[in-house]
Amino acid sequence: MSDSSHYTPPLTDMAFVMEQWLNAADDWQRMPAHAALDADTARMVCEAAGDFCAGQLAPLNSSGDMQGCTLQDGRVRTPDGFAAAYHDYVEAGWPALACDASVGGQGLPGLLDAALNEMLISSNHAWTMYLGILHGAYACLYTHASEELKAQYLPHLVRGDWLPTMCLTEPQAGSDLGLLRTQARPDADGSYRISGNKIFISGGDQDWTDNIVHLVLARLPDAPPGTKGISLFLVPKRIPLAGGGFADNAVYCDGIEKKMGIKGSSTCAMRFEQAQGWLIGQPHRGLAAMFVMMNSARLNVGLQGLGHAETAYQLALAYARERQQMRAVVRPEGSNGSADPIALHPPVRRILWDLRVWTEGMRALGYWCGHVLDLAAQAPEAAERARAQALAALLTPIIKSLFTERGFLLANEALQVFGGYGYVHEYRIEQTVRDARIAMIYEGTNQIQALDLLQRKVLAAPEGLAPLLEALRAEAAQPSIHSAALQGWCDVLETTTQALAQDALSDAELPARAAEDYLRLVGFVALAFAWCRAARIATDAFAHKRESARYFFDYVLVEAEHWRNRVQAARHPVAPI
Amino acid sequence: MSDSSHYTPPLTDMAFVMEQWLNAADDWQRMPAHAALDADTARMVCEAAGDFCAGQLAPLNSSGDMQGCTLQDGRVRTPDGFAAAYHDYVEAGWPALACDASVGGQGLPGLLDAALNEMLISSNHAWTMYLGILHGAYACLYTHASEELKAQYLPHLVRGDWLPTMCLTEPQAGSDLGLLRTQARPDADGSYRISGNKIFISGGDQDWTDNIVHLVLARLPDAPPGTKGISLFLVPKRIPLAGGGFADNAVYCDGIEKKMGIKGSSTCAMRFEQAQGWLIGQPHRGLAAMFVMMNSARLNVGLQGLGHAETAYQLALAYARERQQMRAVVRPEGSNGSADPIALHPPVRRILWDLRVWTEGMRALGYWCGHVLDLAAQAPEAAERARAQALAALLTPIIKSLFTERGFLLANEALQVFGGYGYVHEYRIEQTVRDARIAMIYEGTNQIQALDLLQRKVLAAPEGLAPLLEALRAEAAQPSIHSAALQGWCDVLETTTQALAQDALSDAELPARAAEDYLRLVGFVALAFAWCRAARIATDAFAHKRESARYFFDYVLVEAEHWRNRVQAARHPVAPI
Repeated sequence: MSDSSHYTPPLTDMAFVMEQWLNAADDWQRMPAHAALDADTARMVCEAAGDFCAGQLAPLNSSGDMQGCTLQDGRVRTPDGFAAAYHDYVEAGWPALACDASVGGQGLPGLLDAALNEMLISSNHAWTMYLGILHGAYACLYTHASEELKAQYLPHLVRGDWLPTMCLTEPQAGSDLGLLRTQARPDADGSYRISGNKIFISGGDQDWTDNIVHLVLARLPDAPPGTKGISLFLVPKRIPLAGGGFADNAVYCDGIEKKMGIKGSSTCAMRFEQAQGWLIGQPHRGLAAMFVMMNSARLNVGLQGLGHAETAYQLALAYARERQQMRAVVRPEGSNGSADPIALHPPVRRILWDLRVWTEGMRALGYWCGHVLDLAAQAPEAAERARAQALAALLTPIIKSLFTERGFLLANEALQVFGGYGYVHEYRIEQTVRDARIAMIYEGTNQIQALDLLQRKVLAAPEGLAPLLEALRAEAAQPSIHSAALQGWCDVLETTTQALAQDALSDAELPARAAEDYLRLVGFVALAFAWCRAARIATDAFAHKRESARYFFDYVLVEAEHWRNRVQAARHPVAPI
Repeated sequence: MSDSSHYTPPLTDMAFVMEQWLNAADDWQRMPAHAALDADTARMVCEAAGDFCAGQLAPLNSSGDMQGCTLQDGRVRTPDGFAAAYHDYVEAGWPALACDASVGGQGLPGLLDAALNEMLISSNHAWTMYLGILHGAYACLYTHASEELKAQYLPHLVRGDWLPTMCLTEPQAGSDLGLLRTQARPDADGSYRISGNKIFISGGDQDWTDNIVHLVLARLPDAPPGTKGISLFLVPKRIPLAGGGFADNAVYCDGIEKKMGIKGSSTCAMRFEQAQGWLIGQPHRGLAAMFVMMNSARLNVGLQGLGHAETAYQLALAYARERQQMRAVVRPEGSNGSADPIALHPPVRRILWDLRVWTEGMRALGYWCGHVLDLAAQAPEAAERARAQALAALLTPIIKSLFTERGFLLANEALQVFGGYGYVHEYRIEQTVRDARIAMIYEGTNQIQALDLLQRKVLAAPEGLAPLLEALRAEAAQPSIHSAALQGWCDVLETTTQALAQDALSDAELPARAAEDYLRLVGFVALAFAWCRAARIATDAFAHKRESARYFFDYVLVEAEHWRNRVQAARHPVAPI
């Protein structure tokens, strides 16, 4: 078998995206928080992160999947090596990467955090789950918590010696948080007593850190029903005492799920029994407080699709170049053995090209979103920040949904390259398929993302798709080999969107029927933008980008036509079933 | 949670296909072997098979997946309950269903065997693996083995008290059997000594039967290289002695694979160390002897896609009707709670309709193929048999490839209906996804099937696609609501095929680049045929077929355009990677 624990951080392509495609350093110069950062430093950060991921995490990926987590006497035990790797991660200062310097962070841009996240997922998705909301929880507390809570908890989170969880879902309340029932009763000392059951809590318990900081959605006694009556609370597993030490809180892990994948991640059923908690932000405004982390959380989940696609590409390419079966239709010069590498067979070759152009295209688009989020937070002018915010609001549901769906499908294509070996654990690709599957579900299912994009962001907002279309048209306006094709697809997006808006006036269900395919259509055109630009701006050292762009426009973009046709087909009513 | 072990045999739709769509009984009347069979008897057979599957096998599906197989001291232990269920299966006479009466079989048509196979897979794919090649091995021995071997082995296989395996794959020889190395040396007594290593042998060892009959591909000393030097041998695990009892043979199970799914099925690495074996058929003609079972084996694997889609549909529909999240855009009359069943939400409703029309469409097409194979074997006139054979030769790669791909994708769609619950084992749908995945790989990967269809069956044979096109055009010629659409797509098939044949003359690689998408295009048009016919001939009791057909033509067939475009795109060369 191949060395299945091997992962090569795609540093060269990361540098291409950051330095050529984005030219990020020019923007960093304009951001006071990042003015000191240059491209070389960014490269070094990526390289060090890559070393950690490839060296420490990738070797634990397969064993973690086989071993999984166990629960004994209410305590989770994570797979061998997971906790030790985390302690090294903390020691190297990675949790603080994108946290503000004022609370002990390194204050690096979210773009670098995106690159780190891609590599973490490529190396070990299950391990990464424990810190999946670390930065989001930091941002939430940083923005909404009282100074007292911030002083008590933020430094621990930034250092990483405590880890947070996000406790949203309840058995009856999944996509519909309005149905949640967990109660919070005010206590005399200004704190609250939290009671209720939460499920699907990643890292709800673990054996990595001394304390776990649960961010819990619950209802106050006077809460209105639905999503307008939800408040956010900080509920530590152990309550830090003034004089040092801890008091146990009434927070219990009742079970862990047996899952399809990410088995090294503990997915816990949590019970709060009058546990002590503290309000974060305003009463009944818990969703708003939580949604401060939403764009970056969605981007991060989208990047999981990219991370899995990259791993799948590396695994499939290595195998396809090594494995010899049958002679190629067109044999390479000098080949006269009884078989050729399967990478030469057209069906396999097409899978490999699909993997390559999707992976590199998603990287450009995903990092772009990370950079746009940095601009939204740090650009010097308010107008630029607002424009970036509007663009990010459109990009995040697209990236979350398109990347996770495609990450799964691409991993599945890669599996096929391995034939029967693809189905056995040893070759790791089947784990990639299983791990990748969750990303289509959590952080808002892909269906929810699509409704968010079409109904809330495009049809209900005055600007609609314009912030994205402007960026795409700006590229199409620069004459290049693929600019005419991009221009044409921008026109399609515009007319398709207008027609949907018009027809929705007389067919209230139309947006809900069309949303997923509409998102895919926009996503494909956004990828066309990524490849059009890549082919135009690539320096000679990246001349291969032009070959990849050609494959994208010849073979991949064909599918955009299909999504356009499906949006059109959604005019047909669909009977109840 | 829902009762996840529940499976309802789709007897009504099976009856629709057999009695209305196929009108099979009329053909049975013309077949001497089946003239006594009528529709009512066929229904009763299906009902009894369904009772067995739902009652005995479905309850073992999830537990078998969790427990898996173990290997100890070279002996496989299968999951609890598996062997006992098999003994009941044997007692009820199911193994003999489609075997010839002359060797103790019930002589029922392969069409009923297809229905049985669908239900077996829907209930418990892993369990079914042990008897997956039972009928194929029977057919192979029945046609090619010496009278002596037949007398010694066939009655046991027909009764099911011994089970066969098919030993093809070796570590270096997967899709390319020409590379296989297992050796067979002639012995003085007319038998052979077989030495070599085989992998991926389903049921290579098990604890169900007293003996295991391995059908092994190996090379004789004077064998030419490649596929023209492969012979087929019967190698029993234990050699039956003339006076009764057995002598152990040198056949060893060295390991079992840890797999993505079908974990209750033992996938064995087998070692033959000068094991005694007997030649089946002619020397060096092993592939021909084995290929007698190829059409029905491919059909059966295709039906696995159908079986998984049916299970996925049943699971998703039950869950979607029960689970309430958010209010529907258009609420049903009288609905005033805080949430509606998710089956009412358009994105979920579309998934359910996709599952329904694909499942029912695949059933019509798959059973048609089973019936055509019966006609190929049993029709009174040689010309009809030849026509049926030509049609089956086209249908089998399409069904194998299209159904298994779609079965996996549909199970994956169904998983999404469950949200987070879909990812946990308890709700069973994730197992369906994992189990379904293997069918795209084994019995010739879907890529191999596509090359077989386009290169060998369509472009290289004088009749090309004509036998299938004729059947499709005969339906399109009957005026009905969807006949014009079907007619149009038949024209597309014809022009697309002609253009490929023409362009392949100057581009030798084109068929290999286009084959998969070509197969999908043909498959979609074949499904359009199935739904066009269903809508036309359904009696009032099946009026819902017309609603389903409408959904198929409105929403699903849109994708055919995409595969046509992809076949067109395959004109672009694809660089090495």
